[in-house]
Amino acid sequence: MNAHVLSELGRRTDEPPVSWLMATALARPQLISLAAGFTDSQSLPVKEAGRLLQEILGAPRTGQAALQYGTTIGDGALRRLTARRLQSLDGQHAAPRAYSPDRMIITNGSQQMLYMVTEALCDPGDIVLVEDPSYYVYLSILQSHGVRARGVRMETDGLDLARLEEVLITLKRSGELRHVKLLYLISYYQNPTGRTTSCAKKAGALKLLRQFEAAAGHPIYLLEDTAYRELRFAGDGVASALAIKGCSDRVIYTGTYSKPFATGTRVGFGLIPDPVFTTVLRIKGNHDFGSSNLLQQLLARALASGFYEEHLAVLRRRYARKARLMREALQQHFPPEVEWQEPGGGLYFWARLPQRLTSGRGSKVFQRALANDVLYVPGELCYADDPTRRKPNHEMRLSFGGATEANVRKGIARLGAVLQDCLGGQASC
Amino acid sequence: MNAHVLSELGRRTDEPPVSWLMATALARPQLISLAAGFTDSQSLPVKEAGRLLQEILGAPRTGQAALQYGTTIGDGALRRLTARRLQSLDGQHAAPRAYSPDRMIITNGSQQMLYMVTEALCDPGDIVLVEDPSYYVYLSILQSHGVRARGVRMETDGLDLARLEEVLITLKRSGELRHVKLLYLISYYQNPTGRTTSCAKKAGALKLLRQFEAAAGHPIYLLEDTAYRELRFAGDGVASALAIKGCSDRVIYTGTYSKPFATGTRVGFGLIPDPVFTTVLRIKGNHDFGSSNLLQQLLARALASGFYEEHLAVLRRRYARKARLMREALQQHFPPEVEWQEPGGGLYFWARLPQRLTSGRGSKVFQRALANDVLYVPGELCYADDPTRRKPNHEMRLSFGGATEANVRKGIARLGAVLQDCLGGQASC
Repeated sequence: MNAHVLSELGRRTDEPPVSWLMATALARPQLISLAAGFTDSQSLPVKEAGRLLQEILGAPRTGQAALQYGTTIGDGALRRLTARRLQSLDGQHAAPRAYSPDRMIITNGSQQMLYMVTEALCDPGDIVLVEDPSYYVYLSILQSHGVRARGVRMETDGLDLARLEEVLITLKRSGELRHVKLLYLISYYQNPTGRTTSCAKKAGALKLLRQFEAAAGHPIYLLEDTAYRELRFAGDGVASALAIKGCSDRVIYTGTYSKPFATGTRVGFGLIPDPVFTTVLRIKGNHDFGSSNLLQQLLARALASGFYEEHLAVLRRRYARKARLMREALQQHFPPEVEWQEPGGGLYFWARLPQRLTSGRGSKVFQRALANDVLYVPGELCYADDPTRRKPNHEMRLSFGGATEANVRKGIARLGAVLQDCLGGQASC
Repeated sequence: MNAHVLSELGRRTDEPPVSWLMATALARPQLISLAAGFTDSQSLPVKEAGRLLQEILGAPRTGQAALQYGTTIGDGALRRLTARRLQSLDGQHAAPRAYSPDRMIITNGSQQMLYMVTEALCDPGDIVLVEDPSYYVYLSILQSHGVRARGVRMETDGLDLARLEEVLITLKRSGELRHVKLLYLISYYQNPTGRTTSCAKKAGALKLLRQFEAAAGHPIYLLEDTAYRELRFAGDGVASALAIKGCSDRVIYTGTYSKPFATGTRVGFGLIPDPVFTTVLRIKGNHDFGSSNLLQQLLARALASGFYEEHLAVLRRRYARKARLMREALQQHFPPEVEWQEPGGGLYFWARLPQRLTSGRGSKVFQRALANDVLYVPGELCYADDPTRRKPNHEMRLSFGGATEANVRKGIARLGAVLQDCLGGQASC
């Protein structure tokens, strides 16, 4: 009788895949986790956050304002500073209109924005096009809402546009195009592959979506998740989809200060065109009528004072170093049959095992890695339940974010030994 | 074509009623707002919050932990301290099992918990029983989810149980009982009426709900929103529904540190029985996979250090004083035909005008109050769209929370003059 009380959403919502990873990690305190999406603890701005909070709370006027309710849309100064920053990141091509603070909402991490955008646009049975593989928590949001995910194969510089067109044509033919609401891209140092989508690919994707809108009967938005954008340590900056001429009314841009400032603050944001903006703002009113004002003031002050920029520079050097360490460890310890690509930012390497080895939860590789006290994210968790293709299960996401430098080396060495062993032709793998 | 892209939820979600109140307030900087649900700014713990944050961020170990991701369920220490506190508030009758930290989730204000519980339990067309009147943001959540609200008349000590039974019988007869998932009560110093539900009424309500469960085919939960519980300045404490023997598996308890500590921190919590607990925890994973760790550490430290208790004592004296000021002003300035009741806690007085005067947005009373630079919440905003009764429109919610003492007096004096004028038989009212 108990289960009958749940809503359809309630009954549908699955255990998130990270739950058992986290439970596994907690059960083995000695474990080296290359799985967690944590940032580097040692570079968290502990001292400076303390100083900025002292400034805010050191005076009754600013202190009282910070400890009182704010507005649903979010702090005006934080929105202005964030919008200005995004425009300057996007450079000369950016049309100022696309970066108006009036189109921005502050959220609890960008995760909340991904959730609300999905609520605002998607009914059960609708379709969201995702990169194949994609961010597993977003896949969980879709699953919970009964939304179907269709994976689009990736190339090293982002989506395979020919494949995107094929998928759209297939959906048009089957009469399902009207269900397609979004194309979801993690466009910088993607979670999980570490790949960055080129500007040309973003423009190409937007053009394709636009072509199919008449058949869909409504706009099809590009939901650009830029969670890792600021963690760039190599290569040139790439403009966001907001900078693509004439397209900003089809781009929903989400970003966060969690990764580049502090994951413990959970301050994110989104730039949203109407009518989605109005709807999401109302939904935010129902979720919590505004994020913590204190945290917003902290971020606004970090930006205004210039500290945020200084901190980013430190952070980038730090992640560059950790990524280099992981690359060196991979070169040294991983069998040559395992393919991987070095990212120019973010937190992840993505490794592909030869087809004869699987990497999933039940696989020998995973179990032996665990027995050797090292954890990774099995690649299969990052693939949507898309019945139109078989789910790959021979990849692994390796994070250099949370682990210490020593553990990055040790973890990769252990994992390398497991792989060498398994590839050595032993029947047990 | 644009509107077609929105989901059913997106199309349904209305502008929240507070939006125009806030816009009205912002457009008139001279306005005295007795409408806002803000807490008293001068008693916000600015200095102490600064000190506690310094302690946390003063050491790398605690500082790094606070600025890093936490868990979806929330900080263990905060959950333990909160659960222990609730048990001690409920006193000797409380069964320890009902207060297990394992049944608690930390949220962004209790608002997020209200949202997630509704998501977990309610489909469009379902029914939630609410007090008549009730908290308007919760009514917006229901509206957004296509859930029907049925108002149950209140008495001075909470729900009219005879009326609750009538409503349940009517719904049983019409075959709609299977749609009833929740009874929502703001049980302490209710928003908007200031009334507190007696323990006997809670027990009576739970008993009634249980009687109708067989016909419903599933549990019917009591969702007890205790947002104002800690703001008690007169009368004895009342135990929560968790303390009612044998009923805690039917009680979803939500609470918050926003009102008693700082609205700018937005830390709330809920104690939830299974299977709702498991479902809500998964939904929280999709919303934001955990609230800000920094804010949770701040609250945990405020509780553990004893500061929270000290602060509450100060706060209670302060609100007692502001409530007394408002009462005196009402006695002095309001016409005797206007009825009101003095609350023993919380932030609100609820005034009922004679039937011949209306108080709504378009009413002369509201417009003339505005012309005299004073704002209140029209009572009609607090009534659900329940087609089974006519919506009352001659009440007003008056908050002594946010306004200064001088403005409480001045605001009530202005409003009293408007009412005297309108009741004086002038045709224009």
